[in-house]
Amino acid sequence: MNKERVKHLIEVFGNYSFEGEGINRIAYTNVETAAKHHFMRLCMAQGMTVRMDAIGNVIARKDGLKDGLPVIAMGSHLDSVYDGGLFDGLVGVIGGLEVVTSLNEQGIITNHPIEIIVFACEESSRFGVSTIGSKVMTNQLSAKELLSLKDRNEISFEDALSSQNLSIEKIDEVVRNKSELKAFIELHIEQGPILEKEQLEIGVVTSIAAPARYQIKVLGEAAHSGTTPMEYRKDALAAASELVLKIESLGIKESVYSTVATVGVLSIKPGGMNIIPGEALLQVDIRGIDMESRNRVTEELIETIFLLKNQRNVEIEIIKLSEEQSVPMDEYYIDLLLMLAEKNNFKVKKMSSGAGHDVMNMAKLFKSAMIFVPSKYGISHNPKEYTCIQEIMKGISLMKDFLLAVDKE
Amino acid sequence: MNKERVKHLIEVFGNYSFEGEGINRIAYTNVETAAKHHFMRLCMAQGMTVRMDAIGNVIARKDGLKDGLPVIAMGSHLDSVYDGGLFDGLVGVIGGLEVVTSLNEQGIITNHPIEIIVFACEESSRFGVSTIGSKVMTNQLSAKELLSLKDRNEISFEDALSSQNLSIEKIDEVVRNKSELKAFIELHIEQGPILEKEQLEIGVVTSIAAPARYQIKVLGEAAHSGTTPMEYRKDALAAASELVLKIESLGIKESVYSTVATVGVLSIKPGGMNIIPGEALLQVDIRGIDMESRNRVTEELIETIFLLKNQRNVEIEIIKLSEEQSVPMDEYYIDLLLMLAEKNNFKVKKMSSGAGHDVMNMAKLFKSAMIFVPSKYGISHNPKEYTCIQEIMKGISLMKDFLLAVDKE
Repeated sequence: MNKERVKHLIEVFGNYSFEGEGINRIAYTNVETAAKHHFMRLCMAQGMTVRMDAIGNVIARKDGLKDGLPVIAMGSHLDSVYDGGLFDGLVGVIGGLEVVTSLNEQGIITNHPIEIIVFACEESSRFGVSTIGSKVMTNQLSAKELLSLKDRNEISFEDALSSQNLSIEKIDEVVRNKSELKAFIELHIEQGPILEKEQLEIGVVTSIAAPARYQIKVLGEAAHSGTTPMEYRKDALAAASELVLKIESLGIKESVYSTVATVGVLSIKPGGMNIIPGEALLQVDIRGIDMESRNRVTEELIETIFLLKNQRNVEIEIIKLSEEQSVPMDEYYIDLLLMLAEKNNFKVKKMSSGAGHDVMNMAKLFKSAMIFVPSKYGISHNPKEYTCIQEIMKGISLMKDFLLAVDKE
Repeated sequence: MNKERVKHLIEVFGNYSFEGEGINRIAYTNVETAAKHHFMRLCMAQGMTVRMDAIGNVIARKDGLKDGLPVIAMGSHLDSVYDGGLFDGLVGVIGGLEVVTSLNEQGIITNHPIEIIVFACEESSRFGVSTIGSKVMTNQLSAKELLSLKDRNEISFEDALSSQNLSIEKIDEVVRNKSELKAFIELHIEQGPILEKEQLEIGVVTSIAAPARYQIKVLGEAAHSGTTPMEYRKDALAAASELVLKIESLGIKESVYSTVATVGVLSIKPGGMNIIPGEALLQVDIRGIDMESRNRVTEELIETIFLLKNQRNVEIEIIKLSEEQSVPMDEYYIDLLLMLAEKNNFKVKKMSSGAGHDVMNMAKLFKSAMIFVPSKYGISHNPKEYTCIQEIMKGISLMKDFLLAVDKE
């Protein structure tokens, strides 16, 4: 394992970015494709065979000693959000390459084939849909659904693919069989503050939390702020404010189950200093790994809305935008990672992932695992994103130990 | 007094409007000038001499029997907000004309001269400053201040004046002396729900409430809604929601003093469904006629901000945008109007005006009074604004009685 080599590669890939603050390596742009091509060259230099599938996933493969065994795969992504950070995705990809390079230096050839997968279009920034590459690979997203997508410049998903010499017509070939992979592991930065606040080095992910998303519309009555007495008002913002605080308190109440609840969007109309707001629109994100806990938040929210409608004499409607299920990681691999981390004296904890990752799709077909390394101040999707090289190396080292342990099973 | 004549004139002036919903008779547009010219012709037909001053105020004058007596003036405005209603301003202007017409029909010539004043640019919609005509007439607004104003299309106030053949260079001539007017009275729709809710016909205004306006900025920390546990959050929207509800409760607490408190503007950043809001901006309008009551709201708000900063570990700054003083109407005239209303068996109450009007400027120089007639559902600045002709006629009738009573003093 070579710290300087990893550090250097992170810097190199940091240069694959459009202008802007931080990293702008948006999916299906020339700069992202160039980064993938550079990564493919680095893999080839390590004796791997490389290919890019029809959706843009890179698969670098190194054969094992025994024929016919399923693959042990490591992977993450190279695309970024707009004005993103250096470490999101990249750590898992470079980490996979460092594991292979290190094995080569030690002259170790595994029994099973090894793959490094760079998933296409993990971030939802461009097309509003996340983890496209891994969804297609695991047959959870069809060409038909993809054809309706457009980016903020009205470029269709199909045209974006074509611009990088990829073809939506061949995406059936992207799908892999359950038997092909023995295990999949993703190394990633935490993107949250827990490991740093608790002064830990490694998070072993137990489950990927799933969001339930709602839109709430409050209809009160716009009126003159000077001429309308308090008792005659139907203030949509005041009603919305009660909802914001209730949603926060429900999140706090369910904290023990790792559930979180957030109002990230609130807009009001008409929005003049001398007008009582007549309308408020809220968007709510409730996520957790315990579906019962998450459902309790939703149920209490709906009860609150019912009461508030009568108390404040306003109309409130709630629409479910989406509701996904949380995805557990393989239990045996969770224990294996914990054991290996402790053997290395890494300060470790089991934790859930509040954010989605490619591993949540892979876990539906393959036995899967995920490792977190700390994020400074919990900041991510931001140029200030940072994880020090010592912490990254601990994550890579654990991934290598995992791969060797699984190879011996 | 002729109900059909008033009804017809209201309809006629409703046609002076640009396209759009409701009335669009914006200050210093050709359509507003055409309406003023039509009004001047109607006044001339009643034997009045008419002039338009340099800022665009129309002054129609009918001499009295005795030379050298000061004027009794009635007035309001003809400009509207964007997509406004038919009655705001117009009722007071048409009402003045009906009083003069009715006196002419009865062959009554008053001792004092009578004026009808149509004030220029009462609404703040175009230039962000309200009651410009009456402010200039009473020497409360200078050419220098006016020169900095621009409308939403970047047209300067000066160019807007020029487009209607008016000239900012002569606005010194607009200013009138304290001795010129004996009394000023404005008839206006209430623009609030009180008279209708209480099934009353006439409001005798005691005071024009004044707004104190504040901007509050809450700085928390934007973070991922999925990966940031509730306990580590600095949610700017949750803090802002506490402020909204506190401001509402302070308004309710001070209701007995006719104070109202409103958050009409709230915007958050970054505003994504999976991002905890890092920043919230609120604009607050606190108004009342009791300055001590209004100040208690401000003081408690500042205390709340102080506590909230510590409780939620967020930054909160509050800036005063403006702070005006409430303007009392003449006490003798209040009593006179109440007496005259009761004599007519009008259902009447004393009330403050939550909105600003030209009379608030006139009252600083001249003994002034104001009459409200009900607004259907309290709706104003809206195409749905409505006051029935019977209620308008009661207001005009009271204004005529007032004028005759003051004339005999």
